[in-house]
Amino acid sequence: MLNLGIDLGGTNIVASVVNEEYKIISTGKTPTNTPRTAEEIFDDIAKICREAMEKAGVTIKDIASIGMGTPGTVNDSGVIEYANNLGFNNVPAREMLKERLGDIPVFVANDANCAALGEAYAGCGHGSKNFVAVTLGTGVGSGVIVDGKLVTGVNAAGGECGHTVIVVDGAECTCGRKGCWEAYASATALIRQTKDAMKEYPDSVMHEIAEQEGKVSGRTAFDAMRKGDIAGIKVVNNYIKYVACGLINIVNALQPEIICIGGGICNEGDTLMKPLNRYVHAERYSIHSKIQTKILRAELGNDAGIIGAAILGSVG
Amino acid sequence: MLNLGIDLGGTNIVASVVNEEYKIISTGKTPTNTPRTAEEIFDDIAKICREAMEKAGVTIKDIASIGMGTPGTVNDSGVIEYANNLGFNNVPAREMLKERLGDIPVFVANDANCAALGEAYAGCGHGSKNFVAVTLGTGVGSGVIVDGKLVTGVNAAGGECGHTVIVVDGAECTCGRKGCWEAYASATALIRQTKDAMKEYPDSVMHEIAEQEGKVSGRTAFDAMRKGDIAGIKVVNNYIKYVACGLINIVNALQPEIICIGGGICNEGDTLMKPLNRYVHAERYSIHSKIQTKILRAELGNDAGIIGAAILGSVG
Repeated sequence: MLNLGIDLGGTNIVASVVNEEYKIISTGKTPTNTPRTAEEIFDDIAKICREAMEKAGVTIKDIASIGMGTPGTVNDSGVIEYANNLGFNNVPAREMLKERLGDIPVFVANDANCAALGEAYAGCGHGSKNFVAVTLGTGVGSGVIVDGKLVTGVNAAGGECGHTVIVVDGAECTCGRKGCWEAYASATALIRQTKDAMKEYPDSVMHEIAEQEGKVSGRTAFDAMRKGDIAGIKVVNNYIKYVACGLINIVNALQPEIICIGGGICNEGDTLMKPLNRYVHAERYSIHSKIQTKILRAELGNDAGIIGAAILGSVG
Repeated sequence: MLNLGIDLGGTNIVASVVNEEYKIISTGKTPTNTPRTAEEIFDDIAKICREAMEKAGVTIKDIASIGMGTPGTVNDSGVIEYANNLGFNNVPAREMLKERLGDIPVFVANDANCAALGEAYAGCGHGSKNFVAVTLGTGVGSGVIVDGKLVTGVNAAGGECGHTVIVVDGAECTCGRKGCWEAYASATALIRQTKDAMKEYPDSVMHEIAEQEGKVSGRTAFDAMRKGDIAGIKVVNNYIKYVACGLINIVNALQPEIICIGGGICNEGDTLMKPLNRYVHAERYSIHSKIQTKILRAELGNDAGIIGAAILGSVG
């Protein structure tokens, strides 16, 4: 049984044929080229879907279902209600895919939720039914899986753990609230925290590192820390505390089997994961339970979203 | 079809026969009298169960299942792993109830989770399948229902939204973390906030109110606010902001159909509920969704836990 998975992003669109072992067997890709009309974008989506099928040597008759991950919120009828970085407002994605590719089952979901599903079934979750995926990127994305199914809530907008406040009246978040986890634990936040510390510590090695790199990045403070720089150590310790705070909140609220962490910051490996696990171990509410939530690194990278989209019809 | 529901509390134990319309038709009650051995306590539980059945004119043969809510964490085998205020450590509650009452299906769950189930099915939820119950009492209790089932997590310790941090490095919580929602939104926290404001405002009418009542309570600041007292207004506004913060966190993470709020503070009615709803309306992430989470008052009071326990076998 083969499925088609589509990852509709703000920059690129990728479509893949995925087999029953959750493996990608062929891929088509095209730039999103926003701003364009939804009609134009969906014509291109259909084109790369056909390209992926051709590469795999199959036709739409061999495909059991199509799944698509998209930014924004998607309702039960497969309509993208709102996706600001695509300029989409009530775009009937399911119908538009059916019109272009044929009358087979089509499923559409939020991209972070698709990525969570992919990691849960085919990545570090190895089929885990109670799973939360967190991505520390430009923002803090998350997808929540309970009993094997995505928690999308009453309006398909669920799973936004990045927009839970960890500092009342704290730093401004892009969502309009103050003090969201995203405003402290995203790569964007880490860069802001690094820049603030650089102002406070003019002698910090972070200035040299940033100059060599040509910019302040999510790695600047970690690299400085490895050189024994006090300001770098301070930034990294605080950042990890913020990341841990939100993770422990998820543990206490949901006690999932696994919380998976993805995004560029995870390339720090044990430098990030070990102290995170120490925080979680020390602060979780369930200190008396024999079974505890595991905090693991994401395994699939960008493929998670495509695989998750492809299996929306069978598991999500 | 009748079920037996038991609410094992730190002070009292209540058992009721509950019918298929989720109505309590008879009740037995006894003090818990801690500290006692689990054997003694379970002998008393069996006694009040028989008392409730006698009052209803039925025998154990008329009972489809027994459900019990207890403080602490309960594993899948019906063992109370840990309940500090009962002094219980690995008490095999399911087996002990079967030994005393007969070999019928027995279900055991955390008391806050039972109360959530009761409100969802028989209270303000009217059968809602995606529901979170929050109780603002000595602590902040909560129970999370997704797809009609309690989210108990990998170790039956899930649903502790009261122990999610809303102020990093904030006020100390009984759980060992700093800045938990419970440390800002419980009745205990409100009393602490009231006392702090009374120190800061020696002319506040809260001093008179507390003197008349003989103590500072969760009502003191609300009563002062109604008299136009500036310190009272400040305390209430801040308290409501803290309660709202945790509610919006739940909305953004899970988008349940309904969040139900219980506990003594809810007797303030619209004084509490109206500003809470304004905060949620202003800050929720899903501003573009047509369907939004409703914030409602709990309807069943103490009966929620017993009814929820009684229906554990059929719905939980």
